[in-house]
Amino acid sequence: MRVRGLPQKNLCLPVGFSFSAACAGIKASGRPDLALVEACPGTTAAAMFTKNRVVAAPLEVGRASLAASRGGVRAVIVNSGNANCATGKAGIRACQQVCRELARLLALRASEIFPSSTGIIGVPLPVDRIVAKLPDLTAARGATKQGIADFARAIMTTDTRPKLASVTFHSGKSTVSVLGIAKGAGMIHPQLATMLVYLFTDVVASPVELKRWLQESCEQTFNCISIDGDTSTNDTVLLLASGRSGVRLKQPSARKDFSDALLQACQSLAEQIVFDGEGVKHVIRLSVDQARNREEARQVAQIVARSLLVKTAWAGADPNWGRILAAVGRSGIAIDPAKVSIKIGDQMVCRGGVGANFDQKQAHQALAQSRCEIRIFLGRGSASILFLTTDLTPEYVRINADYST
Amino acid sequence: MRVRGLPQKNLCLPVGFSFSAACAGIKASGRPDLALVEACPGTTAAAMFTKNRVVAAPLEVGRASLAASRGGVRAVIVNSGNANCATGKAGIRACQQVCRELARLLALRASEIFPSSTGIIGVPLPVDRIVAKLPDLTAARGATKQGIADFARAIMTTDTRPKLASVTFHSGKSTVSVLGIAKGAGMIHPQLATMLVYLFTDVVASPVELKRWLQESCEQTFNCISIDGDTSTNDTVLLLASGRSGVRLKQPSARKDFSDALLQACQSLAEQIVFDGEGVKHVIRLSVDQARNREEARQVAQIVARSLLVKTAWAGADPNWGRILAAVGRSGIAIDPAKVSIKIGDQMVCRGGVGANFDQKQAHQALAQSRCEIRIFLGRGSASILFLTTDLTPEYVRINADYST
Repeated sequence: MRVRGLPQKNLCLPVGFSFSAACAGIKASGRPDLALVEACPGTTAAAMFTKNRVVAAPLEVGRASLAASRGGVRAVIVNSGNANCATGKAGIRACQQVCRELARLLALRASEIFPSSTGIIGVPLPVDRIVAKLPDLTAARGATKQGIADFARAIMTTDTRPKLASVTFHSGKSTVSVLGIAKGAGMIHPQLATMLVYLFTDVVASPVELKRWLQESCEQTFNCISIDGDTSTNDTVLLLASGRSGVRLKQPSARKDFSDALLQACQSLAEQIVFDGEGVKHVIRLSVDQARNREEARQVAQIVARSLLVKTAWAGADPNWGRILAAVGRSGIAIDPAKVSIKIGDQMVCRGGVGANFDQKQAHQALAQSRCEIRIFLGRGSASILFLTTDLTPEYVRINADYST
Repeated sequence: MRVRGLPQKNLCLPVGFSFSAACAGIKASGRPDLALVEACPGTTAAAMFTKNRVVAAPLEVGRASLAASRGGVRAVIVNSGNANCATGKAGIRACQQVCRELARLLALRASEIFPSSTGIIGVPLPVDRIVAKLPDLTAARGATKQGIADFARAIMTTDTRPKLASVTFHSGKSTVSVLGIAKGAGMIHPQLATMLVYLFTDVVASPVELKRWLQESCEQTFNCISIDGDTSTNDTVLLLASGRSGVRLKQPSARKDFSDALLQACQSLAEQIVFDGEGVKHVIRLSVDQARNREEARQVAQIVARSLLVKTAWAGADPNWGRILAAVGRSGIAIDPAKVSIKIGDQMVCRGGVGANFDQKQAHQALAQSRCEIRIFLGRGSASILFLTTDLTPEYVRINADYST
């Protein structure tokens, strides 16, 4: 995983995809807000969606299309600036219209188009503006780094920078590439986040295989990050495989190489998302260890990562371990406080539920870094989880108090 | 319930209690930090405590004392500035020592003393300073309004004002009084909060009766407020009945009068706590209606009241109902978004999961008031709950980022 959550400079392009972006005037700022990927014939797909009961129109349409096409996707159309959520049947129709128009231009079936939207909830999608830009968008597409960079910028909302990661590995004489592009900076919490992630590869794989790999990677990456504890209505992770490398991943070692590459790309994107969290000054690598099982560890990590008192203490680089212990105590897990220990940076600050003898200044300095490790030991078992989370700053509040007005 | 969550001016004193306060030097500010109530012989008691698994020493000692004395309490000793939590066995011994010393001075048994602490977690209680002040504290006690005011100030931490409420009613020729004193401004969430509440009355009642009334009142008041979603380690609500009015509450009407008076006092204190929430600019009366049952309504209310995106929108008086709907969608309740409606002030802003035609400016103005009503209709049944909650401001973050350092 990259150290600072920065996007990669040297990207490798999986074969079989072309990218473009445009300004459709959905964002008031006039910035790029429409993005397209076209995939070559035979491309297979798998997707994961938000667990929120309130689901945006493009997720309903995309899920239905994936079912109708049996995991065959030939194009992805994304708009930013409008979530097309809580827009009722009109929102579904608007999304379908965009897919239909794009299908017509690319000579595809509408069910081969996978749509995404991100932005404000509850405002009708400006279909006409989007449709009017589709000819330019399709004409501009190219299998180039510039096309990828344009795509990554056009899907941003409150993101301050594009999020990109790529990994390659060799299989016999062939090279396989995995490329990931993501957006997300707030409303980040398992399950998933206000987060769109597109993963592209050129291996040969069935939709069922892709789904299994995607689930495994998400569990360890996008489901282990939390910025503000809110789960969005539009979260989508899509994995597309063009098959153009000709590599079929029959050997266990090749399968391992691919799942490692996918995991690495997802980890990098997850980290980039957290580092770009709204108003974030400190990223915390939060381990919960000695849990009875991974779910228990996850529950404790989520409660701690969501505690306002803990997150505000981190904003002040305050080694106030009592707040962490109090959050663990209300996690719903039957912990014995006398068995809980907490480490900030290199120092044990709480041992057996009681303050340890530690250097306050050193703990403060550890927390004052842009990145700090905190470990919680529950004394209950041997399961653990690693969570990436953030502090909560006045800047976060300011960004989110001024969103729609 | 009082309109602005302000403490009452004209307090009535239940017979049988005397109050005092002192500066023991626990708070670095030098402000009063030690408070005492002495209750007359025969006083009965009931208490409720935090549900957090991490529990401060005074709660363990107080719970054991209540059991040992079978609900007989003769004095309450409270210190602010130090929570005596996560202090291990030394913390228990420190608390017991304070109780023993006070018992000796008042010629009582240690099990008749009920202790409380509030303040920072994980720092040893400065027992010697407390014990040194006990003679002054006991000498100063009086059944006076000044004594009550001093007590209310001495238990404050980040509170900006003391919290007091009293209610009287007549039973035959006798007058019964209920007086409540509270502290709490952050870490406020069901179950209970970083909140100490002391309720005094002069009815005649057994500990079992008191416990039932106390539970009923708490359920509708202190368990329906949320400032920051954190549950403290020290939360305590204590109800003491001196019996000195001679009123035994045998008639159903008298019992009703008493439970109404207790509920009213608790409601006022709950509201005072929320209005004094750290950095709070807007108090929201959040109703969740048309739920299948009250627990379901409570769950939705808690998720909405805890959502950072919702709370920051409220800080900006932003009628961004999409964030409220998204929070409802991740509440874990199997809601049908197409049946959910949301009202801000007098206007329906979302009807059947879709944006209603409403006046944005008017909704903004409603939210810009210091107090605003928001109602969520789930379309699932007829149960409802009323929650008091708050916005989240940069000021809250600042207060909590600078606490211990």
